[in-house]
Amino acid sequence: MATRKNAFYAQSGGVTAVINASACGVIQTARAHSDKIGKVYAGRNGIIGALTEDLIDTSRESAAAIELLRSTPSGAFGSCRFKLKSLEANQREYERLIEVFRAHDIGYFFYNGGGDSADTCYKVSQLAQGMGYPIQAIHVPKTVDNDLPITDCCPGFGSVAKYVAVSTLEASFDVRSMAKTSTKVFVLEVMGRHAGWIAAAGGLVQDHGIPVVVLFPEIEFDPAKFIARVDALVKTHGYCTVVVSEGCHYPDGKFLAEQGTRDAFGHAQLGGAAPVVANMVKQALGHKFHWAVADYLQRSARHIASKTDVKQAYELGKAAVQMALKGHNAVMPTIDRVSDAPYKYKIGMAPLAKVANAEKFMPRSFITADGFGITDACKRYLLPLIQGEDYPKYRNGLPVYATLKNVAVARKLAPFELK
Amino acid sequence: MATRKNAFYAQSGGVTAVINASACGVIQTARAHSDKIGKVYAGRNGIIGALTEDLIDTSRESAAAIELLRSTPSGAFGSCRFKLKSLEANQREYERLIEVFRAHDIGYFFYNGGGDSADTCYKVSQLAQGMGYPIQAIHVPKTVDNDLPITDCCPGFGSVAKYVAVSTLEASFDVRSMAKTSTKVFVLEVMGRHAGWIAAAGGLVQDHGIPVVVLFPEIEFDPAKFIARVDALVKTHGYCTVVVSEGCHYPDGKFLAEQGTRDAFGHAQLGGAAPVVANMVKQALGHKFHWAVADYLQRSARHIASKTDVKQAYELGKAAVQMALKGHNAVMPTIDRVSDAPYKYKIGMAPLAKVANAEKFMPRSFITADGFGITDACKRYLLPLIQGEDYPKYRNGLPVYATLKNVAVARKLAPFELK
Repeated sequence: MATRKNAFYAQSGGVTAVINASACGVIQTARAHSDKIGKVYAGRNGIIGALTEDLIDTSRESAAAIELLRSTPSGAFGSCRFKLKSLEANQREYERLIEVFRAHDIGYFFYNGGGDSADTCYKVSQLAQGMGYPIQAIHVPKTVDNDLPITDCCPGFGSVAKYVAVSTLEASFDVRSMAKTSTKVFVLEVMGRHAGWIAAAGGLVQDHGIPVVVLFPEIEFDPAKFIARVDALVKTHGYCTVVVSEGCHYPDGKFLAEQGTRDAFGHAQLGGAAPVVANMVKQALGHKFHWAVADYLQRSARHIASKTDVKQAYELGKAAVQMALKGHNAVMPTIDRVSDAPYKYKIGMAPLAKVANAEKFMPRSFITADGFGITDACKRYLLPLIQGEDYPKYRNGLPVYATLKNVAVARKLAPFELK
Repeated sequence: MATRKNAFYAQSGGVTAVINASACGVIQTARAHSDKIGKVYAGRNGIIGALTEDLIDTSRESAAAIELLRSTPSGAFGSCRFKLKSLEANQREYERLIEVFRAHDIGYFFYNGGGDSADTCYKVSQLAQGMGYPIQAIHVPKTVDNDLPITDCCPGFGSVAKYVAVSTLEASFDVRSMAKTSTKVFVLEVMGRHAGWIAAAGGLVQDHGIPVVVLFPEIEFDPAKFIARVDALVKTHGYCTVVVSEGCHYPDGKFLAEQGTRDAFGHAQLGGAAPVVANMVKQALGHKFHWAVADYLQRSARHIASKTDVKQAYELGKAAVQMALKGHNAVMPTIDRVSDAPYKYKIGMAPLAKVANAEKFMPRSFITADGFGITDACKRYLLPLIQGEDYPKYRNGLPVYATLKNVAVARKLAPFELK
């Protein structure tokens, strides 16, 4: 692309502790190439902002405010759960996107999300070509679930993994202190609808002498086997910790705790596996229990973010812009691991056609034979991702996080109704 | 006391992120006065260790190990929930304590706990005098509930308050990002059976632009009024956060979520107010919700401990030993606040007779008139307590926490059966 074009950036799906670090990487890199990239417009509330022409002019934010994004959790421009399906089913929306891009002279589309948004990003690039308004569509990976293919890991995951490992260690020390007369079993529920990567991070405390049982979505839940395992651990150690993935389910596919509600993508809204598991232990073994559900706390915990994760989130945002400047389209920057220890990686590039709508589960070799723990191979994979602390600044006892001005760009088109 | 005597130290009740910092203060100060204090024996699993003559010889721990206690959460020697009631009801146990103290030449009794253990500590000092084996009994305050009288605050509280404030801020940023198409209400359940101090800390995010509703145990829960408040906030801000105390209850005293089980002290074991509240919002207003239950994570979160709290926990452990050396008995060192801003305090001393079995609730003036928030007076009280960060060291991505050797002292008495 020879002429100077504006860029569009949007955050998609569940936000993370470091998605704003990717935004920071995108915006700072674009600003550094103002000869090629004009303004960076952000979608207010994700792709909905593009569809409704509700664009945020990030050029109105100071350099300091953009820099502060690096240490601010959540989505500074708002995210959304709004899936564009096939070009046929959502032709009206895809065409509207191109119209909005054309109206605002947008030549670069940076979409920061998980598998669903990789798919949208890919389709935008396809359609744009067909409509004669070429867009360079680059996907910036983000998902705490760590389930995108090709890339070795996904920004957002390392920090949630660190949060879960630290929290599991701390709570396990607590229950160990109490076990003689009180709580003997502590259950922590973590995210991970289909993939057990987050739960696996709880298994890292194995090497700290903590008796821990991990319940993965990849392993069908067997109550009798589970109770026998808890019983054995409590008999040996006096206590045990259970880390259960929200996606843990019975052989028939039924989740341990399904609340019956579904999100905008039609996924079951989960939560409450921890009390189910805790009460199961109480009934079978009589042990006093405590349980916690980390929910949003785990993915927003910027205060204990992994330094490695923050760095990679920024680098992938930066790489996305660099790839666009080199003329690439329909690609995603990736983390390509070179070695575990010392941890080395390179930034790679994957075609979106291969990324979209593929999920990466825990390999069976990462889960112990009994299905309740993680193997050394898994530890070698996980440990580099939780290395280092990247503390935010604090003022008056609380972290200093950015709240942007988010000034709207003047509309040029007729309103568009979301269906 | 002219001759050199040994000291006994025990941890009681629910542990905290900083109770080991108090242990560190006790042991280091005792070691610094080896002319007056011999060995410090710790009760394995709290007072049970004294009753069963299961003593830990802390002199077997290195100076480095003891120093590491300052940054280690939980109870390094084990705690217990085992309440000694009146001298009449538990005469056998009280007398046994004196026997064990006599057998091991223990002249100092440092008991690190909340209201129940202050009471035990007081009774031990009374009985010891009566039995002709004088013991200097000093209580070291500890409770995340912050409900001890006289002292301005209790070690353990500042750190859980910081955790709750930080977590509420982070999760609120998350729901704010998601609210356009997804989660509009986030509910965080925190500890506090009778007193709303911990929940109040969630209210500190009010000053960060977060629409937050706090549900205190001190305010009878009124569902209609609550729903109206959430409705108004979501209409104005697009989202809201609810921080609910586990002790929140209806006018008839029924907790929002009582699991039906009771702990060793006969207290109802709570948990699960968050899903109750969240579903109430869903039913009344239809908003998508997320909820978290912090449980042990909040009180063990040494990774985000308040520097002020860690410092005070250490200082009170140190002061307890200094008071004993000065000949005091049946007292507790306290935090006496001198000014809010700049925050200044002195270490005071309270007679245990006035501490035992009294609970300090949130003053009504700390809660806004509508019952859903905190006042400026409350903020002036809370803010100093969450100041400063006191990060533990990390190795390989996880905090370095102490696990002591906990070598047993040889028994000298016949076994004693706990009833």
